[in-house]
Amino acid sequence: MVYPEPMSKQPSERTTIALAQMAVSKRPVENLRAAASWIAKAAKKGAKIVCLPELFRSPYFCQREDPANFDLAEPIPGPTTQTLAKAAKKHRVAVIAPVFERRAAGVYHNSAAILDADGKLAGLYRKMHIPDDPAYYEKYYFAPGDLGFQACSTQHARVGVLICWDQWYPEAARLTALQGAEVLFYPTAIGWHPSEKKMHGAAQLDAWRTVQRAHAIANGVYVAVANRVGLEKPPGGGAGLAFWGGSFVCGPFGEVLAEASLDKEALLVAEIDRVRLEDVRRHWPFLRDRRIDAFGGITSRYLEKA
Amino acid sequence: MVYPEPMSKQPSERTTIALAQMAVSKRPVENLRAAASWIAKAAKKGAKIVCLPELFRSPYFCQREDPANFDLAEPIPGPTTQTLAKAAKKHRVAVIAPVFERRAAGVYHNSAAILDADGKLAGLYRKMHIPDDPAYYEKYYFAPGDLGFQACSTQHARVGVLICWDQWYPEAARLTALQGAEVLFYPTAIGWHPSEKKMHGAAQLDAWRTVQRAHAIANGVYVAVANRVGLEKPPGGGAGLAFWGGSFVCGPFGEVLAEASLDKEALLVAEIDRVRLEDVRRHWPFLRDRRIDAFGGITSRYLEKA
Repeated sequence: MVYPEPMSKQPSERTTIALAQMAVSKRPVENLRAAASWIAKAAKKGAKIVCLPELFRSPYFCQREDPANFDLAEPIPGPTTQTLAKAAKKHRVAVIAPVFERRAAGVYHNSAAILDADGKLAGLYRKMHIPDDPAYYEKYYFAPGDLGFQACSTQHARVGVLICWDQWYPEAARLTALQGAEVLFYPTAIGWHPSEKKMHGAAQLDAWRTVQRAHAIANGVYVAVANRVGLEKPPGGGAGLAFWGGSFVCGPFGEVLAEASLDKEALLVAEIDRVRLEDVRRHWPFLRDRRIDAFGGITSRYLEKA
Repeated sequence: MVYPEPMSKQPSERTTIALAQMAVSKRPVENLRAAASWIAKAAKKGAKIVCLPELFRSPYFCQREDPANFDLAEPIPGPTTQTLAKAAKKHRVAVIAPVFERRAAGVYHNSAAILDADGKLAGLYRKMHIPDDPAYYEKYYFAPGDLGFQACSTQHARVGVLICWDQWYPEAARLTALQGAEVLFYPTAIGWHPSEKKMHGAAQLDAWRTVQRAHAIANGVYVAVANRVGLEKPPGGGAGLAFWGGSFVCGPFGEVLAEASLDKEALLVAEIDRVRLEDVRRHWPFLRDRRIDAFGGITSRYLEKA
């Protein structure tokens, strides 16, 4: 078929993407080396875009509020993006590279650089929705993103990047998809409180998967979620967090195309198909009928009862 | 536990709701009688709110564009709401009563009256998102609703009503939930094109269920979907539509609490639990962190690429 519009700089019907589900070591240098190695492996399997998990360079330090952890932050460009840009260029793949970004003294973000297949920075996303829950003390570390929701073009696809807590927000997915994203990537660090796992674990995992599959359905896009895996205990002691892996890619019907285990590192590879995107949006033309005249209340915190 | 706010006129921790999954006969008078009978049965099982399927008074006439079908429309109040208001009052239950509404000559809506347990009209919803697809020619019949998205209080719960095609729109669910709805009811008439059922049927059904379960998750509400069931062929001949039943109720984790078959009439009964709603919203405080400063683009049809 002929496309009505070019969807990326080098459009083709299919593009292979990959997600690295990583278990993270205590040594940032090792995690960066591991990431470069996952990128090489993914390229070998034909992937053209590779996504790494949220904050993959270190253990999930947000389990505690400790000012020393700001030492883990770095600028963009900086060591992480420079190393991964080299890997991207070498292997001709775009890379979604999460970074604990130091923007200025006292201004830190939970970010992801989108590195294009020539190693250049194609886009920068700063996590918009910042959680604060027991053992996920992110509001202490990260200023909320101020770049908004964005899609950006790489050589291999037009992509949207959202990060972890963003995944619970239909507005975030919608605003990114409306900018032409073909795939929404979600670098993630989500897990169970070990004490809750037995009673609530399966339900939490299912809700997490379901809400993201629904973003794919409601918007007619692919969704690709790269989570970390493994139990991480904070330095001062405590039960820690059992990151649940379960990285997945789903298509625009929410159909799961590839899915990783809950307890092991994995490289997930899947194909996005632009003919299928076009076809699904023709048959389920949700975007046509949105009542944009009546959606103004979305910008309210709450709509009190009349 | 003590509630921080009264959630309905007679708050109690739990409220039983029911959905009637109806197969619709060709005679509107029979369908109305059947609806009253489902309401009686539901009340006997302890239900306090009963929801009927979209346009339950007649076969799904939108399979064809025929001006004679406007004869099926009626005002609100009118025969359907008067009959069902009597049933509501008699059994002390609130009723979600879909009506093909004749508002004026040439102004018709796909509506649902919310009848309170005393028989009074508690609210009126006019379907906001109107589909137009092969065999679902609704744009011919129905003017888009102009009452917006609403929640309304009944004696037994604060409810939101959305209708069928609305179920694909996260904005609709969000705007209704932000007004304090505890349950989103979706009177529905969705089915397979018989020729597509074998290849796409399971995937379509799963996407439909998934996107609605996600509304429950994203908003921390109950979702209750009443679909019709059975094959209906249009008068002039043709393959018709195989309405897929599958009515369901899910809780705020998207967990399915009750689910009907794909091929038989059914009365589904489930309980909504306000302690659970409070608990889920405390543990997953999505509403707290919405980036309302950055959601303005939601009122755009599309956001062209920079």
